Amino acid sequence: MTPADLQLANRLADAAGAAIRPLFRGEWAEERKEDRSFVTEADRAAEAAMRQIIEAERSEDGIIGEEYGTRNEGAGRQWVLDPIDGTTSFIAGRPIFGTLIALLQDGWPVLGVIDQPIAKERWVGRIGEGTTFNGKPAKVRPCKDFSDAVLGTTTPHQFAGDDVDAFMGVAKAVAERKIIYGGDCYNYGLVASGHVDVVIEAGLKIHDFAALVPVVEGAGGTMSDWQGNPLDAGSDGRVIALGDPARLEDVLEAMG
Amino acid sequence: MTPADLQLANRLADAAGAAIRPLFRGEWAEERKEDRSFVTEADRAAEAAMRQIIEAERSEDGIIGEEYGTRNEGAGRQWVLDPIDGTTSFIAGRPIFGTLIALLQDGWPVLGVIDQPIAKERWVGRIGEGTTFNGKPAKVRPCKDFSDAVLGTTTPHQFAGDDVDAFMGVAKAVAERKIIYGGDCYNYGLVASGHVDVVIEAGLKIHDFAALVPVVEGAGGTMSDWQGNPLDAGSDGRVIALGDPARLEDVLEAMG
Repeated sequence: MTPADLQLANRLADAAGAAIRPLFRGEWAEERKEDRSFVTEADRAAEAAMRQIIEAERSEDGIIGEEYGTRNEGAGRQWVLDPIDGTTSFIAGRPIFGTLIALLQDGWPVLGVIDQPIAKERWVGRIGEGTTFNGKPAKVRPCKDFSDAVLGTTTPHQFAGDDVDAFMGVAKAVAERKIIYGGDCYNYGLVASGHVDVVIEAGLKIHDFAALVPVVEGAGGTMSDWQGNPLDAGSDGRVIALGDPARLEDVLEAMG
Repeated sequence: MTPADLQLANRLADAAGAAIRPLFRGEWAEERKEDRSFVTEADRAAEAAMRQIIEAERSEDGIIGEEYGTRNEGAGRQWVLDPIDGTTSFIAGRPIFGTLIALLQDGWPVLGVIDQPIAKERWVGRIGEGTTFNGKPAKVRPCKDFSDAVLGTTTPHQFAGDDVDAFMGVAKAVAERKIIYGGDCYNYGLVASGHVDVVIEAGLKIHDFAALVPVVEGAGGTMSDWQGNPLDAGSDGRVIALGDPARLEDVLEAMG
């Protein structure tokens, strides 16, 4: 990763935001995908805008995009793009969705961006370099007492079967009135900035979590699967983000 | 309700926002209340700022405040104040909480304000006068096909016993990926602006819902209890907000 990569990632986020902003709370076409989620004109326009820049300026790099698929599969450098993570919030007019951009080197995320284009909030994480929020250093906070943690998750419907019990184990270990629902990638930015302590999710794909890892870990937190192992492209989509890595044992124990 | 009441309500919201903004994502004292919810220094400062204005300028009016209780009980005109509806979102650094201000005349809400002080978004509803969002007219949207509705609710933990089945009946009638969680009063503003179609909640108190009624109904929607009856001070806290009143039968049927 070079300073030029960082600059490019910021330009990709700018381009996605410029595509999304005019459609927010406006009129857009939408359709339902095979996985029952929705895709809107804004998701497509934002990913197209980002791909156009990468294809023009970094034709050797790979792309893994949520809406338009893979380009240059197997490239050592791959840009992972989720134009709108939190399409449901976008549809409902809530400014807590985000554009996700990650750079993978040999499969590992070394650069991650979470961009909220309406509130103009941007988290940028770089492995070994720290995380910034709107250009200023972002830091997780310590969580001495797990029962006092703020817990976030997007929707209860993402948990099925035994996953429900695992999530509820964590939900019962914290105060019920400190659980936030909704938020998608935005909750992980709040972990990096020290406002949320733990996020538990399931069913995430590579484009959902690749950008989150450098943001959370560059701010001093940790991300893992539900066994406490690092996330990679082969992960099963069950994710823990933790502001205070010292609480990982508490989370795993609460999950049972 | 007079133009002076409207002006006063706006000044109350300004005063609450001025008290809340410096504490958002900052440091604040918090404590747990008897109902297990949390109250922060921001809730208290915002309500105190509003009460000070009412007591100085409208000493005859009553006040029903979430944090500091009732003043001039039984007055014909009563100001209902919830300084931060969505304290959990405030604590987590999410700008989707709101200050709620209602004016009751003989027990009925005739004026309501939902104010989001970070995003600077304000819905004002007046019975018979229509609803505004940041000063411009706000309108609900039609919902021809209930299966396509956007459904909002703050947290699944608010539903217990048979209420879970009632909520899940509605959740199953709409698309799972069009259910937004989190949001508190903010979701009702989004109903008034035509981005969300239905909100279902339970456990609301008078300070949670009094301001919502003029906002949603002034924009062309409807609010009721779970039997479809108008909300009043004696309501059991189970609430339906609906952008398109023609869908009330669909909601009641889905609730079983």
